[in-house]
Amino acid sequence: MGTMSSDSALFGIDNLPYGVFSPRDAPEERRIGVRLGDRVLDAGAAARALGSPHAAPLSAPSLDALLAAGRPVWRAVRAELRSWLGDAAHRERVEPLLRPLDTVTLHLPFTVADYVDFYSSEHHARNVGEIFRPGGASLTPNWKHMPIGYHGRAGSVRVSGSPVPRPLGQRRPAEGSATPGFGPSQRLDIEAEVGFVVGTGSAPGRPVPLSALREHVFGVCLLNDWSARDIQAWEYVPLGPFLGKSFATSISAWITPLDALDAAWTAPPPRDVPPLPYLDDASAPPGGLDLRLSVLINGHPVAHPPFATMYWTAAQQLAHLTINGAHLRTGDLFASGTVSGAAPEERGCLLELTWNGERPLRLPDGERAFLMDGDRVTLTAWAPGPGGQRIGLGEVSGTVEPTPA
Amino acid sequence: MGTMSSDSALFGIDNLPYGVFSPRDAPEERRIGVRLGDRVLDAGAAARALGSPHAAPLSAPSLDALLAAGRPVWRAVRAELRSWLGDAAHRERVEPLLRPLDTVTLHLPFTVADYVDFYSSEHHARNVGEIFRPGGASLTPNWKHMPIGYHGRAGSVRVSGSPVPRPLGQRRPAEGSATPGFGPSQRLDIEAEVGFVVGTGSAPGRPVPLSALREHVFGVCLLNDWSARDIQAWEYVPLGPFLGKSFATSISAWITPLDALDAAWTAPPPRDVPPLPYLDDASAPPGGLDLRLSVLINGHPVAHPPFATMYWTAAQQLAHLTINGAHLRTGDLFASGTVSGAAPEERGCLLELTWNGERPLRLPDGERAFLMDGDRVTLTAWAPGPGGQRIGLGEVSGTVEPTPA
Repeated sequence: MGTMSSDSALFGIDNLPYGVFSPRDAPEERRIGVRLGDRVLDAGAAARALGSPHAAPLSAPSLDALLAAGRPVWRAVRAELRSWLGDAAHRERVEPLLRPLDTVTLHLPFTVADYVDFYSSEHHARNVGEIFRPGGASLTPNWKHMPIGYHGRAGSVRVSGSPVPRPLGQRRPAEGSATPGFGPSQRLDIEAEVGFVVGTGSAPGRPVPLSALREHVFGVCLLNDWSARDIQAWEYVPLGPFLGKSFATSISAWITPLDALDAAWTAPPPRDVPPLPYLDDASAPPGGLDLRLSVLINGHPVAHPPFATMYWTAAQQLAHLTINGAHLRTGDLFASGTVSGAAPEERGCLLELTWNGERPLRLPDGERAFLMDGDRVTLTAWAPGPGGQRIGLGEVSGTVEPTPA
Repeated sequence: MGTMSSDSALFGIDNLPYGVFSPRDAPEERRIGVRLGDRVLDAGAAARALGSPHAAPLSAPSLDALLAAGRPVWRAVRAELRSWLGDAAHRERVEPLLRPLDTVTLHLPFTVADYVDFYSSEHHARNVGEIFRPGGASLTPNWKHMPIGYHGRAGSVRVSGSPVPRPLGQRRPAEGSATPGFGPSQRLDIEAEVGFVVGTGSAPGRPVPLSALREHVFGVCLLNDWSARDIQAWEYVPLGPFLGKSFATSISAWITPLDALDAAWTAPPPRDVPPLPYLDDASAPPGGLDLRLSVLINGHPVAHPPFATMYWTAAQQLAHLTINGAHLRTGDLFASGTVSGAAPEERGCLLELTWNGERPLRLPDGERAFLMDGDRVTLTAWAPGPGGQRIGLGEVSGTVEPTPA
């Protein structure tokens, strides 16, 4: 194999994310794949060939059955995969079931039930507050007491690589006009986020405690919550974001199991306001995750948001989401909100990076206040793995297309 | 049959709403039922017995396949049902397939894809504005330019009769305190609404025009968007309602096909601000629906909200929902928002009826500012039908239970 490629380093035996693929020559098929380096294992075929007791969920056309199977099955399947792919004894039978990544098409890997988007970076929330409410308090009074969130449109979640047509919509009336503007969004933006995929549901009326995160969450993905800032600014008072967000949300094709991120847990920032007991993680194991994100526009890096700086953790988001008795379903997706660190180059959206367009980015192909048609946005990330290795998260990318005629 | 019962009058041959039932003696089964008076036709059994070409979708365990089949099938199935139930020639074979309503259990009749809740009553929006922003403008500047809406939690939609445990949550800190209140909601409310059920989906990037409502919407239901006003008030700035609503949304077990409401179309209120072209219904057929709602608490009528007074119509809501390129899926549910008329007794939630608790209602069993544990709330409605008849909508009811221990 010669020198280790970047893919091999980021997607080694300690990673093993799950996805759903079609072989290039059978585009109507859907098979569960597990990524190893720049290849994909046909997990169902491997399970059948090797007599796995989990051949049924691994032979399904999506991850739904595996997600629903629960944590003991997730762990058993992961142990099998590590054995199949790592033990010389199995290598001969498994080798023919590994396909080059560039010979498959990747699909949305699970059925999205409800999609919730949080707003859990203090740096992001403060920057947005300063931009939209200059001179006012940058955080709303509730912000340090709960992970603020809202429901997004599950039907608009799409897999990495899907195009993103520029949305049409209303914007605030021009000065002196009584009629709103209307047309393709002029302020199309990204939001670099991390998504959490729920496997095991919960019962209605039974809040999920902080300690139960790993019983319910199967894994993580990268998520780009595309945002039309002009549509959003005009519509969002009083009921929150709607059409400014609902046109597209892209997720990575690969779901990294939480079990691959054992070395990435880290303490969240100090809580300067004591949370209520159901959100108090002072005596819990560290609930932050050290994920290092990068944002690229047309291949050019524009930001490196550090997920470890998020104020509210996934466990707190889950506890809050269910405290009112709402239950979880297999396939629920909840996202962190824009990941922004303290430094200007750590901001996860153009609204912040260009300070609402006032300070355009200089890219090799010109200036950007907001996205132009044809721009390809890619989010990547890695986390510390065992023994100083890196665990890669699958990238999420999308190209902006003109509004359909 | 003697005198015509109220059920017979409201659920006659011109109505024929769809639901999903289990026979009392086979609780695990799910069958499609069609209501006639106080009886339910086993629609799959009838279709098979009478050789219908639509036996497959009618024999499914939910309405999903029928919804997806599209308007030509909806019309053909309705014509068959009218013939089976109305023609003497078929009566003998169909009669044994009619079961008394009180021998079946009704279930959520379709898989809810995305749930969107609008805010389309001007009276409701003005009352809420006056209550929460006294002295300010009662409508936000965008209100007359678009049907304001947001996404709710699809997983919390439940069928009429399901209990509604009182939600737990945070509320605004008491005067002088820095810590939010926490506990069972003290201001549990209802919202009397009408829900629209999407049958035929649409393509991403292709807005649905006003004229296409009936190609996409299969029918209507009654909907109670239970709301915890104290949780909502503390959380909703800046991203809108979340836990104050996400614990429960109840819908009627019966979906009334739009084809049963032909006589109910009516002109919406005059538009005093001209809408943008994609929302302009001035030259369209009347887009309002004359549905007369009633709200009952423990059987006592407390309000009669007139749906015909809604400012924004279902066609406008659908056009707005998709103008940004978001697509529709089978099972999408969008609701009107609280239905409130101009008169005090026409208001569709306790927030308005009691003016934020300041003027409690007097019920036979005592005063109510907001709901008490044990309160049973029922919404009913009827619409004008052919020849002066009334078309009943299935009721939606729910009983408030104490917060689980």
